[in-house]
Amino acid sequence: MNITYNEATKALNASIEKANELNIPVSIAVVDTGGHLVAFARLDSVFGVIEFALKKARTAVMFGVNSDIMGTIVSGAEIHGYGMLNSNEGLLTIAGGVVLKNKDGNIIGAIASSGGSPEQDKEIASAGTAVLN
Amino acid sequence: MNITYNEATKALNASIEKANELNIPVSIAVVDTGGHLVAFARLDSVFGVIEFALKKARTAVMFGVNSDIMGTIVSGAEIHGYGMLNSNEGLLTIAGGVVLKNKDGNIIGAIASSGGSPEQDKEIASAGTAVLN
Amino acid sequence: MNITYNEATKALNASIEKANELNIPVSIAVVDTGGHLVAFARLDSVFGVIEFALKKARTAVMFGVNSDIMGTIVSGAEIHGYGMLNSNEGLLTIAGGVVLKNKDGNIIGAIASSGGSPEQDKEIASAGTAVLN
Amino acid sequence: MNITYNEATKALNASIEKANELNIPVSIAVVDTGGHLVAFARLDSVFGVIEFALKKARTAVMFGVNSDIMGTIVSGAEIHGYGMLNSNEGLLTIAGGVVLKNKDGNIIGAIASSGGSPEQDKEIASAGTAVLN
Repeated sequence: MNITYNEATKALNASIEKANELNIPVSIAVVDTGGHLVAFARLDSVFGVIEFALKKARTAVMFGVNSDIMGTIVSGAEIHGYGMLNSNEGLLTIAGGVVLKNKDGNIIGAIASSGGSPEQDKEIASAGTAVLN
Repeated sequence: MNITYNEATKALNASIEKANELNIPVSIAVVDTGGHLVAFARLDSVFGVIEFALKKARTAVMFGVNSDIMGTIVSGAEIHGYGMLNSNEGLLTIAGGVVLKNKDGNIIGAIASSGGSPEQDKEIASAGTAVLN
Repeated sequence: MNITYNEATKALNASIEKANELNIPVSIAVVDTGGHLVAFARLDSVFGVIEFALKKARTAVMFGVNSDIMGTIVSGAEIHGYGMLNSNEGLLTIAGGVVLKNKDGNIIGAIASSGGSPEQDKEIASAGTAVLN
Repeated sequence: MNITYNEATKALNASIEKANELNIPVSIAVVDTGGHLVAFARLDSVFGVIEFALKKARTAVMFGVNSDIMGTIVSGAEIHGYGMLNSNEGLLTIAGGVVLKNKDGNIIGAIASSGGSPEQDKEIASAGTAVLN
Protein backbone atom coordinates (compact mmCIF):
# COMPACT_ATOMS: atom_id res chain seq x y z
CA MET A 1 0.00 0.00 0.00
CA ASN A 2 1.10 3.50 -0.82
CA ILE A 3 -0.05 6.62 1.00
CA THR A 4 -2.95 8.56 -0.54
CA TYR A 5 -3.20 12.34 -0.66
CA ASN A 6 -5.95 12.24 1.94
CA GLU A 7 -3.78 10.29 4.36
CA ALA A 8 -0.77 12.52 3.64
CA THR A 9 -2.68 15.72 4.26
CA LYS A 10 -4.13 14.31 7.50
CA ALA A 11 -0.60 13.56 8.74
CA LEU A 12 0.72 16.90 7.50
CA ASN A 13 -2.02 18.85 9.27
CA ALA A 14 -1.35 17.09 12.57
CA SER A 15 2.33 17.98 12.28
CA ILE A 16 1.53 21.58 11.33
CA GLU A 17 -0.66 21.86 14.42
CA LYS A 18 2.19 20.62 16.61
CA ALA A 19 4.67 23.02 14.97
CA ASN A 20 2.31 25.94 15.56
CA GLU A 21 1.85 24.86 19.17
CA LEU A 22 5.64 24.82 19.64
CA ASN A 23 5.83 28.04 17.60
CA ILE A 24 8.79 26.92 15.48
CA PRO A 25 9.22 27.86 11.77
CA VAL A 26 9.81 24.45 10.15
CA SER A 27 9.40 22.75 6.78
CA ILE A 28 7.41 19.51 6.74
CA ALA A 29 7.45 16.93 3.93
CA VAL A 30 5.41 13.79 3.32
CA VAL A 31 6.71 11.20 0.82
CA ASP A 32 5.29 7.92 -0.51
CA THR A 33 6.92 4.47 -0.37
CA GLY A 34 9.06 5.34 -3.41
CA GLY A 35 10.37 8.49 -1.70
CA HIS A 36 8.35 10.80 -3.95
CA LEU A 37 6.71 13.96 -2.59
CA VAL A 38 3.02 13.86 -1.70
CA ALA A 39 2.47 16.95 0.47
CA PHE A 40 4.63 19.76 1.75
CA ALA A 41 4.35 22.85 3.95
CA ARG A 42 6.99 25.46 4.62
CA LEU A 43 5.76 27.26 7.72
CA ASP A 44 7.77 30.36 6.93
CA SER A 45 11.03 28.53 7.66
CA VAL A 46 14.32 29.49 6.03
CA PHE A 47 14.61 27.76 2.65
CA GLY A 48 17.74 25.78 3.53
CA VAL A 49 15.72 23.32 5.59
CA ILE A 50 13.36 22.41 2.73
CA GLU A 51 15.84 19.84 1.47
CA PHE A 52 16.61 18.74 5.02
CA ALA A 53 12.96 17.79 5.48
CA LEU A 54 12.86 16.03 2.08
CA LYS A 55 16.04 14.09 2.76
CA LYS A 56 15.03 13.03 6.25
CA ALA A 57 11.71 11.75 4.92
CA ARG A 58 13.43 9.91 2.07
CA THR A 59 16.08 8.45 4.35
CA ALA A 60 13.35 7.05 6.60
CA VAL A 61 11.25 5.46 3.88
CA MET A 62 14.28 4.25 1.91
CA PHE A 63 15.54 2.12 4.79
CA GLY A 64 12.23 1.53 6.52
CA VAL A 65 13.38 3.08 9.81
CA ASN A 66 13.27 6.54 11.36
CA SER A 67 16.07 8.84 10.22
CA ASP A 68 17.75 8.83 13.64
CA ILE A 69 17.85 5.01 13.71
CA MET A 70 19.63 5.15 10.36
CA GLY A 71 21.88 7.76 12.00
CA THR A 72 22.91 5.24 14.64
CA ILE A 73 23.78 2.70 11.92
CA VAL A 74 25.81 5.27 9.98
CA SER A 75 27.66 6.41 13.13
CA GLY A 76 28.53 2.82 13.99
CA ALA A 77 30.19 2.34 10.63
CA GLU A 78 32.85 4.95 11.48
CA ILE A 79 34.50 6.52 8.40
CA HIS A 80 32.63 4.07 6.13
CA GLY A 81 29.36 5.71 7.21
CA TYR A 82 30.45 8.67 5.12
CA GLY A 83 30.07 6.45 2.05
CA MET A 84 26.52 5.62 3.14
CA LEU A 85 25.68 9.33 3.59
CA ASN A 86 26.93 9.97 0.05
CA SER A 87 24.60 7.35 -1.44
CA ASN A 88 21.09 7.77 -2.80
CA GLU A 89 21.67 11.45 -3.63
CA GLY A 90 22.60 12.10 0.00
CA LEU A 91 21.08 10.74 3.20
CA LEU A 92 20.16 12.92 6.17
CA THR A 93 20.40 10.94 9.38
CA ILE A 94 19.26 13.42 12.03
CA ALA A 95 16.10 12.90 14.11
CA GLY A 96 12.89 14.18 12.55
CA GLY A 97 12.22 11.69 9.74
CA VAL A 98 9.59 9.17 10.76
CA VAL A 99 8.03 6.27 8.84
CA LEU A 100 4.26 6.34 8.34
CA LYS A 101 2.37 3.09 8.83
CA ASN A 102 -1.22 2.11 8.17
CA LYS A 103 -3.41 0.27 10.68
CA ASP A 104 -1.95 -3.07 9.59
CA GLY A 105 1.56 -1.87 10.46
CA ASN A 106 2.75 -1.63 6.84
CA ILE A 107 4.93 1.30 5.85
CA ILE A 108 3.02 3.59 3.46
CA GLY A 109 5.43 6.55 3.39
CA ALA A 110 7.30 8.89 5.70
CA ILE A 111 6.98 12.38 7.20
CA ALA A 112 9.78 14.67 8.28
CA SER A 113 10.24 18.06 9.87
CA SER A 114 13.26 20.34 9.79
CA GLY A 115 13.93 23.75 11.28
CA GLY A 116 13.74 22.97 14.99
CA SER A 117 16.09 21.03 17.22
CA PRO A 118 16.29 17.31 16.33
CA GLU A 119 14.03 16.57 19.33
CA GLN A 120 11.47 19.17 18.28
CA ASP A 121 11.52 18.00 14.67
CA LYS A 122 10.94 14.44 15.84
CA GLU A 123 8.05 15.55 18.02
CA ILE A 124 6.50 17.47 15.12
CA ALA A 125 6.90 14.59 12.66
CA SER A 126 5.65 12.04 15.17
CA ALA A 127 2.44 14.03 15.62
CA GLY A 128 1.76 13.20 11.98
CA THR A 129 2.14 9.49 12.46
CA ALA A 130 -0.39 9.16 15.27
CA VAL A 131 -3.39 10.11 13.16
CA LEU A 132 -2.90 7.25 10.67
CA ASN A 133 -2.94 4.43 13.21
CA MET B 1 7.57 41.05 -0.62
CA ASN B 2 7.71 37.30 -0.55
CA ILE B 3 4.74 34.95 -0.26
CA THR B 4 3.85 33.75 3.26
CA TYR B 5 2.73 30.24 4.08
CA ASN B 6 -0.78 31.53 4.73
CA GLU B 7 -0.98 33.10 1.28
CA ALA B 8 0.54 30.02 -0.36
CA THR B 9 -1.91 27.67 1.28
CA LYS B 10 -4.81 29.91 0.33
CA ALA B 11 -3.71 29.79 -3.33
CA LEU B 12 -3.02 26.05 -3.14
CA ASN B 13 -6.46 25.32 -1.70
CA ALA B 14 -8.19 27.30 -4.45
CA SER B 15 -6.26 25.33 -7.08
CA ILE B 16 -7.02 22.02 -5.33
CA GLU B 17 -10.73 22.90 -5.38
CA LYS B 18 -10.57 23.58 -9.12
CA ALA B 19 -8.66 20.32 -9.75
CA ASN B 20 -11.26 18.37 -7.80
CA GLU B 21 -14.04 20.11 -9.73
CA LEU B 22 -12.37 19.10 -13.03
CA ASN B 23 -11.63 15.69 -11.48
CA ILE B 24 -8.03 15.51 -12.77
CA PRO B 25 -5.18 13.90 -10.77
CA VAL B 26 -2.56 16.66 -10.78
CA SER B 27 0.40 17.85 -8.72
CA ILE B 28 0.35 21.48 -7.62
CA ALA B 29 3.37 23.46 -6.38
CA VAL B 30 3.71 26.93 -4.87
CA VAL B 31 7.14 28.59 -4.81
CA ASP B 32 8.40 31.88 -3.39
CA THR B 33 10.26 34.68 -5.21
CA GLY B 34 13.49 32.67 -4.89
CA GLY B 35 11.87 29.66 -6.61
CA HIS B 36 11.90 27.65 -3.39
CA LEU B 37 9.01 25.40 -2.41
CA VAL B 38 6.39 26.76 -0.01
CA ALA B 39 3.46 24.37 -0.39
CA PHE B 40 2.75 21.27 -2.42
CA ALA B 41 -0.06 18.79 -3.02
CA ARG B 42 0.03 15.64 -5.11
CA LEU B 43 -3.62 14.84 -5.69
CA ASP B 44 -2.84 11.19 -6.35
CA SER B 45 -1.19 12.05 -9.67
CA VAL B 46 1.56 9.90 -11.20
CA PHE B 47 4.90 10.86 -9.71
CA GLY B 48 6.46 11.98 -13.00
CA VAL B 49 4.52 15.24 -12.95
CA ILE B 50 5.79 16.34 -9.52
CA GLU B 51 8.89 17.78 -11.13
CA PHE B 52 6.85 19.18 -14.03
CA ALA B 53 4.83 21.25 -11.55
CA LEU B 54 7.96 22.39 -9.71
CA LYS B 55 9.71 23.37 -12.95
CA LYS B 56 6.74 25.25 -14.36
CA ALA B 57 6.42 27.24 -11.14
CA ARG B 58 10.15 27.98 -11.07
CA THR B 59 10.19 28.93 -14.76
CA ALA B 60 7.38 31.41 -14.11
CA VAL B 61 8.88 33.12 -11.07
CA MET B 62 12.42 32.99 -12.50
CA PHE B 63 11.46 35.13 -15.48
CA GLY B 64 8.52 36.97 -13.97
CA VAL B 65 6.07 35.70 -16.59
CA ASN B 66 3.74 32.71 -16.91
CA SER B 67 5.43 29.52 -18.14
CA ASP B 68 3.65 29.60 -21.51
CA ILE B 69 4.81 33.18 -22.16
CA MET B 70 8.35 31.96 -21.57
CA GLY B 71 7.46 29.13 -23.97
CA THR B 72 6.72 31.62 -26.71
CA ILE B 73 10.08 33.29 -26.14
CA VAL B 74 11.88 29.93 -26.22
CA SER B 75 10.08 28.82 -29.41
CA GLY B 76 10.93 32.11 -31.12
CA ALA B 77 14.61 31.60 -30.41
CA GLU B 78 14.67 28.42 -32.54
CA ILE B 79 17.77 26.26 -31.87
CA HIS B 80 18.95 28.74 -29.25
CA GLY B 81 15.82 27.99 -27.26
CA TYR B 82 17.35 24.62 -26.35
CA GLY B 83 20.12 26.48 -24.60
CA MET B 84 17.53 28.38 -22.62
CA LEU B 85 15.69 25.16 -21.73
CA ASN B 86 18.98 23.69 -20.48
CA SER B 87 19.66 26.63 -18.17
CA ASN B 88 18.73 27.00 -14.51
CA GLU B 89 18.59 23.23 -13.95
CA GLY B 90 16.02 22.89 -16.73
CA LEU B 91 13.07 25.11 -17.65
CA LEU B 92 9.59 23.79 -18.41
CA THR B 93 7.80 26.12 -20.79
CA ILE B 94 4.36 24.54 -21.09
CA ALA B 95 1.19 26.29 -19.87
CA GLY B 96 0.32 25.79 -16.22
CA GLY B 97 2.90 27.89 -14.37
CA VAL B 98 1.46 31.22 -13.25
CA VAL B 99 3.01 34.11 -11.32
CA LEU B 100 1.39 35.08 -8.03
CA LYS B 101 0.95 38.80 -7.31
CA ASN B 102 -0.20 40.69 -4.24
CA LYS B 103 -2.82 43.46 -4.31
CA ASP B 104 -0.20 46.01 -5.33
CA GLY B 105 0.66 43.96 -8.41
CA ASN B 106 4.07 42.83 -7.14
CA ILE B 107 5.16 39.27 -7.84
CA ILE B 108 5.36 37.30 -4.58
CA GLY B 109 5.82 33.78 -6.01
CA ALA B 110 4.29 31.37 -8.53
CA ILE B 111 1.91 28.43 -8.61
CA ALA B 112 1.84 25.59 -11.14
CA SER B 113 -0.19 22.50 -11.93
CA SER B 114 0.80 19.43 -13.95
CA GLY B 115 -1.06 16.28 -14.85
CA GLY B 116 -3.84 17.67 -17.02
CA SER B 117 -3.73 19.17 -20.50
CA PRO B 118 -1.81 22.47 -20.70
CA GLU B 119 -5.16 24.31 -20.78
CA GLN B 120 -6.49 22.46 -17.73
CA ASP B 121 -3.27 22.96 -15.81
CA LYS B 122 -3.40 26.67 -16.57
CA GLU B 123 -7.01 26.85 -15.40
CA ILE B 124 -6.13 25.03 -12.16
CA ALA B 125 -3.10 27.23 -11.46
CA SER B 126 -5.00 30.41 -12.32
CA ALA B 127 -7.66 29.55 -9.74
CA GLY B 128 -4.89 29.93 -7.18
CA THR B 129 -3.96 33.42 -8.30
CA ALA B 130 -7.44 34.92 -8.00
CA VAL B 131 -7.65 34.58 -4.23
CA LEU B 132 -4.58 36.73 -3.60
CA ASN B 133 -5.77 39.78 -5.51
CA MET C 1 0.41 -2.82 -4.64
CA ASN C 2 4.07 -2.94 -5.49
CA ILE C 3 5.77 -5.70 -7.50
CA THR C 4 7.44 -8.50 -5.53
CA TYR C 5 10.73 -10.10 -6.46
CA ASN C 6 8.91 -13.27 -7.47
CA GLU C 7 6.69 -11.37 -9.88
CA ALA C 8 9.62 -9.37 -11.23
CA THR C 9 11.71 -12.44 -11.90
CA LYS C 10 8.78 -14.15 -13.62
CA ALA C 11 8.40 -11.15 -15.95
CA LEU C 12 12.17 -10.90 -16.47
CA ASN C 13 12.48 -14.57 -17.41
CA ALA C 14 9.69 -14.32 -19.98
CA SER C 15 11.44 -11.33 -21.56
CA ILE C 16 14.81 -13.12 -21.51
CA GLU C 17 13.23 -16.08 -23.30
CA LYS C 18 11.86 -13.78 -26.01
CA ALA C 19 15.24 -12.03 -26.37
CA ASN C 20 16.99 -15.37 -26.76
CA GLU C 21 14.40 -16.45 -29.32
CA LEU C 22 15.05 -13.25 -31.31
CA ASN C 23 18.76 -13.69 -30.63
CA ILE C 24 19.39 -10.03 -29.74
CA PRO C 25 21.89 -8.91 -27.07
CA VAL C 26 19.74 -6.61 -24.89
CA SER C 27 19.59 -5.30 -21.34
CA ILE C 28 16.31 -5.79 -19.46
CA ALA C 29 15.26 -3.93 -16.31
CA VAL C 30 12.31 -4.33 -13.96
CA VAL C 31 11.40 -1.47 -11.60
CA ASP C 32 8.78 -1.06 -8.88
CA THR C 33 6.08 1.63 -8.63
CA GLY C 34 8.63 4.09 -7.24
CA GLY C 35 10.96 3.52 -10.20
CA HIS C 36 13.47 1.56 -8.11
CA LEU C 37 15.28 -1.48 -9.54
CA VAL C 38 13.96 -4.95 -8.69
CA ALA C 39 15.60 -7.25 -11.24
CA PHE C 40 18.02 -6.81 -14.11
CA ALA C 41 19.71 -8.91 -16.78
CA ARG C 42 22.33 -7.78 -19.28
CA LEU C 43 22.28 -10.48 -21.94
CA ASP C 44 25.80 -9.66 -23.07
CA SER C 45 24.66 -6.33 -24.54
CA VAL C 46 26.94 -3.32 -24.83
CA PHE C 47 26.92 -1.40 -21.56
CA GLY C 48 25.56 1.83 -23.05
CA VAL C 49 22.06 0.37 -23.19
CA ILE C 50 21.94 -0.48 -19.47
CA GLU C 51 20.80 3.04 -18.67
CA PHE C 52 18.50 3.07 -21.70
CA ALA C 53 16.64 0.09 -20.24
CA LEU C 54 16.52 1.69 -16.78
CA LYS C 55 15.27 5.02 -18.11
CA LYS C 56 12.62 3.47 -20.35
CA ALA C 57 11.30 1.46 -17.41
CA ARG C 58 11.30 4.51 -15.14
CA THR C 59 9.67 6.71 -17.78
CA ALA C 60 6.86 4.16 -18.11
CA VAL C 61 6.14 3.76 -14.41
CA MET C 62 6.62 7.46 -13.67
CA PHE C 63 3.82 8.50 -16.01
CA GLY C 64 1.79 5.30 -15.89
CA VAL C 65 2.00 4.72 -19.65
CA ASN C 66 4.36 2.84 -21.99
CA SER C 67 7.50 4.77 -22.91
CA ASP C 68 6.42 5.23 -26.54
CA ILE C 69 3.08 6.73 -25.46
CA MET C 70 5.05 9.26 -23.42
CA GLY C 71 7.13 9.71 -26.57
CA THR C 72 4.05 10.80 -28.49
CA ILE C 73 3.19 13.32 -25.77
CA VAL C 74 6.73 14.71 -25.76
CA SER C 75 6.82 14.95 -29.58
CA GLY C 76 3.52 16.80 -29.60
CA ALA C 77 4.90 19.47 -27.29
CA GLU C 78 7.44 20.54 -29.93
CA ILE C 79 10.51 22.32 -28.50
CA HIS C 80 8.90 22.30 -25.04
CA GLY C 81 9.11 18.49 -25.04
CA TYR C 82 12.83 18.96 -24.63
CA GLY C 83 12.14 20.39 -21.17
CA MET C 84 10.12 17.27 -20.34
CA LEU C 85 12.98 15.00 -21.48
CA ASN C 86 15.32 16.92 -19.19
CA SER C 87 13.14 16.32 -16.15
CA ASN C 88 13.27 13.51 -13.60
CA GLU C 89 16.97 12.86 -14.27
CA GLY C 90 16.22 12.34 -17.96
CA LEU C 91 13.32 10.55 -19.62
CA LEU C 92 13.74 8.02 -22.43
CA THR C 93 10.69 8.01 -24.67
CA ILE C 94 11.47 5.27 -27.19
CA ALA C 95 9.41 2.08 -27.47
CA GLY C 96 10.45 -0.75 -25.14
CA GLY C 97 9.33 0.44 -21.71
CA VAL C 98 6.06 -1.19 -20.70
CA VAL C 99 3.99 -0.87 -17.51
CA LEU C 100 3.40 -4.04 -15.50
CA LYS C 101 -0.09 -4.62 -14.13
CA ASN C 102 -1.50 -7.18 -11.73
CA LYS C 103 -4.68 -9.15 -12.41
CA ASP C 104 -6.82 -6.29 -11.09
CA GLY C 105 -5.32 -3.93 -13.68
CA ASN C 106 -3.30 -1.89 -11.17
CA ILE C 107 0.21 -0.79 -12.13
CA ILE C 108 2.76 -2.60 -9.98
CA GLY C 109 5.94 -1.59 -11.84
CA ALA C 110 7.45 -1.55 -15.32
CA ILE C 111 9.78 -3.61 -17.51
CA ALA C 112 11.98 -2.36 -20.32
CA SER C 113 14.36 -3.73 -22.91
CA SER C 114 17.10 -1.91 -24.82
CA GLY C 115 19.59 -3.09 -27.40
CA GLY C 116 17.30 -4.07 -30.25
CA SER C 117 15.18 -1.95 -32.57
CA PRO C 118 12.36 -0.10 -30.77
CA GLU C 119 9.91 -2.70 -32.14
CA GLN C 120 12.05 -5.61 -30.94
CA ASP C 121 12.57 -4.03 -27.52
CA LYS C 122 8.83 -3.52 -27.20
CA GLU C 123 8.20 -7.15 -28.17
CA ILE C 124 10.75 -8.35 -25.61
CA ALA C 125 9.38 -6.16 -22.81
CA SER C 126 5.79 -7.06 -23.66
CA ALA C 127 6.60 -10.76 -23.26
CA GLY C 128 7.27 -9.95 -19.62
CA THR C 129 3.90 -8.34 -19.06
CA ALA C 130 1.84 -11.28 -20.30
CA VAL C 131 2.87 -13.63 -17.48
CA LEU C 132 1.54 -11.34 -14.71
CA ASN C 133 -2.01 -11.05 -16.03
CA MET D 1 38.31 -11.61 -19.78
CA ASN D 2 35.03 -10.08 -18.76
CA ILE D 3 32.17 -11.87 -17.03
CA THR D 4 29.42 -13.25 -19.29
CA TYR D 5 25.74 -13.15 -18.45
CA ASN D 6 25.79 -16.90 -17.90
CA GLU D 7 28.57 -16.62 -15.35
CA ALA D 8 26.93 -13.63 -13.67
CA THR D 9 23.61 -15.38 -13.31
CA LYS D 10 25.32 -18.49 -11.93
CA ALA D 11 27.02 -16.36 -9.25
CA LEU D 12 23.82 -14.40 -8.58
CA ASN D 13 21.78 -17.56 -8.09
CA ALA D 14 24.29 -19.01 -5.62
CA SER D 15 24.12 -15.78 -3.61
CA ILE D 16 20.32 -15.71 -3.77
CA GLU D 17 20.25 -19.27 -2.43
CA LYS D 18 22.47 -18.25 0.50
CA ALA D 19 20.33 -15.16 1.20
CA ASN D 20 17.18 -17.29 1.25
CA GLU D 21 18.89 -19.79 3.54
CA LEU D 22 19.80 -16.95 5.94
CA ASN D 23 16.32 -15.48 5.34
CA ILE D 24 17.55 -11.88 4.95
CA PRO D 25 15.94 -9.37 2.53
CA VAL D 26 18.97 -8.13 0.59
CA SER D 27 19.82 -6.61 -2.79
CA ILE D 28 22.53 -8.37 -4.81
CA ALA D 29 24.41 -6.87 -7.75
CA VAL D 30 26.89 -8.34 -10.23
CA VAL D 31 29.11 -5.98 -12.24
CA ASP D 32 31.68 -6.54 -15.00
CA THR D 33 35.32 -5.43 -15.09
CA GLY D 34 34.16 -1.94 -16.13
CA GLY D 35 31.92 -1.70 -13.06
CA HIS D 36 28.78 -1.89 -15.21
CA LEU D 37 25.73 -3.85 -14.13
CA VAL D 38 25.28 -7.40 -15.48
CA ALA D 39 22.67 -8.93 -13.19
CA PHE D 40 20.68 -7.76 -10.20
CA ALA D 41 18.11 -9.11 -7.74
CA ARG D 42 16.28 -7.19 -5.04
CA LEU D 43 14.97 -9.90 -2.75
CA ASP D 44 12.23 -7.64 -1.41
CA SER D 45 14.79 -5.53 0.46
CA VAL D 46 14.20 -1.86 1.24
CA PHE D 47 15.17 0.27 -1.76
CA GLY D 48 17.90 2.21 0.03
CA VAL D 49 20.29 -0.74 -0.15
CA ILE D 50 20.08 -1.08 -3.97
CA GLU D 51 22.75 1.58 -4.35
CA PHE D 52 24.73 0.13 -1.44
CA ALA D 53 25.02 -3.18 -3.31
CA LEU D 54 25.97 -1.43 -6.55
CA LYS D 55 28.60 0.71 -4.83
CA LYS D 56 30.15 -2.18 -2.93
CA ALA D 57 30.45 -4.18 -6.14
CA ARG D 58 31.95 -1.23 -8.02
CA THR D 59 34.34 -0.43 -5.18
CA ALA D 60 35.59 -4.03 -5.29
CA VAL D 61 36.13 -4.27 -9.03
CA MET D 62 37.44 -0.71 -9.28
CA PHE D 63 40.36 -1.45 -6.98
CA GLY D 64 40.64 -5.18 -7.56
CA VAL D 65 40.08 -6.05 -3.91
CA ASN D 66 37.08 -6.85 -1.74
CA SER D 67 35.19 -3.79 -0.45
CA ASP D 68 36.28 -4.36 3.16
CA ILE D 69 39.96 -4.51 2.14
CA MET D 70 39.47 -1.12 0.50
CA GLY D 71 37.82 -0.11 3.77
CA THR D 72 40.99 -0.87 5.68
CA ILE D 73 42.98 1.27 3.25
CA VAL D 74 40.50 4.14 3.56
CA SER D 75 40.47 3.96 7.39
CA GLY D 76 44.26 3.97 7.47
CA ALA D 77 44.38 7.18 5.46
CA GLU D 78 42.52 9.08 8.22
CA ILE D 79 41.08 12.41 6.97
CA HIS D 80 42.41 11.70 3.48
CA GLY D 81 40.18 8.64 3.37
CA TYR D 82 37.19 10.98 2.97
CA GLY D 83 38.69 12.17 -0.28
CA MET D 84 38.92 8.56 -1.45
CA LEU D 85 35.30 7.93 -0.43
CA ASN D 86 34.25 10.98 -2.46
CA SER D 87 36.00 9.76 -5.61
CA ASN D 88 34.54 7.71 -8.44
CA GLU D 89 30.98 8.85 -7.72
CA GLY D 90 31.28 7.55 -4.16
CA LEU D 91 32.89 4.42 -2.77
CA LEU D 92 31.27 2.11 -0.25
CA THR D 93 33.88 0.36 1.83
CA ILE D 94 31.84 -1.95 4.03
CA ALA D 95 32.13 -5.75 3.82
CA GLY D 96 29.93 -7.44 1.22
CA GLY D 97 31.58 -6.52 -2.08
CA VAL D 98 33.69 -9.39 -3.42
CA VAL D 99 35.74 -9.71 -6.61
CA LEU D 100 34.80 -12.50 -9.02
CA LYS D 101 37.66 -14.51 -10.55
CA ASN D 102 37.73 -17.15 -13.27
CA LYS D 103 39.59 -20.47 -12.92
CA ASP D 104 42.85 -18.82 -13.94
CA GLY D 105 42.56 -16.36 -11.07
CA ASN D 106 41.84 -13.35 -13.26
CA ILE D 107 39.26 -10.83 -12.06
CA ILE D 108 36.20 -10.90 -14.33
CA GLY D 109 33.85 -8.74 -12.24
CA ALA D 110 32.45 -8.39 -8.72
CA ILE D 111 29.37 -9.33 -6.73
CA ALA D 112 27.95 -7.55 -3.70
CA SER D 113 25.12 -7.92 -1.22
CA SER D 114 23.53 -5.28 1.01
CA GLY D 115 20.72 -5.45 3.53
CA GLY D 116 22.22 -7.76 6.14
CA SER D 117 25.03 -7.17 8.61
CA PRO D 118 28.45 -6.67 6.96
CA GLU D 119 29.32 -10.27 7.89
CA GLN D 120 26.09 -11.66 6.43
CA ASP D 121 26.45 -9.61 3.26
CA LYS D 122 30.00 -10.91 2.85
CA GLU D 123 28.80 -14.49 3.34
CA ILE D 124 26.04 -14.02 0.75
CA ALA D 125 28.36 -12.41 -1.81
CA SER D 126 31.07 -15.00 -1.22
CA ALA D 127 28.62 -17.80 -2.03
CA GLY D 128 28.50 -16.32 -5.52
CA THR D 129 32.24 -16.46 -6.00
CA ALA D 130 32.63 -20.16 -5.22
CA VAL D 131 30.67 -21.36 -8.25
CA LEU D 132 33.00 -19.68 -10.75
CA ASN D 133 36.21 -21.28 -9.52
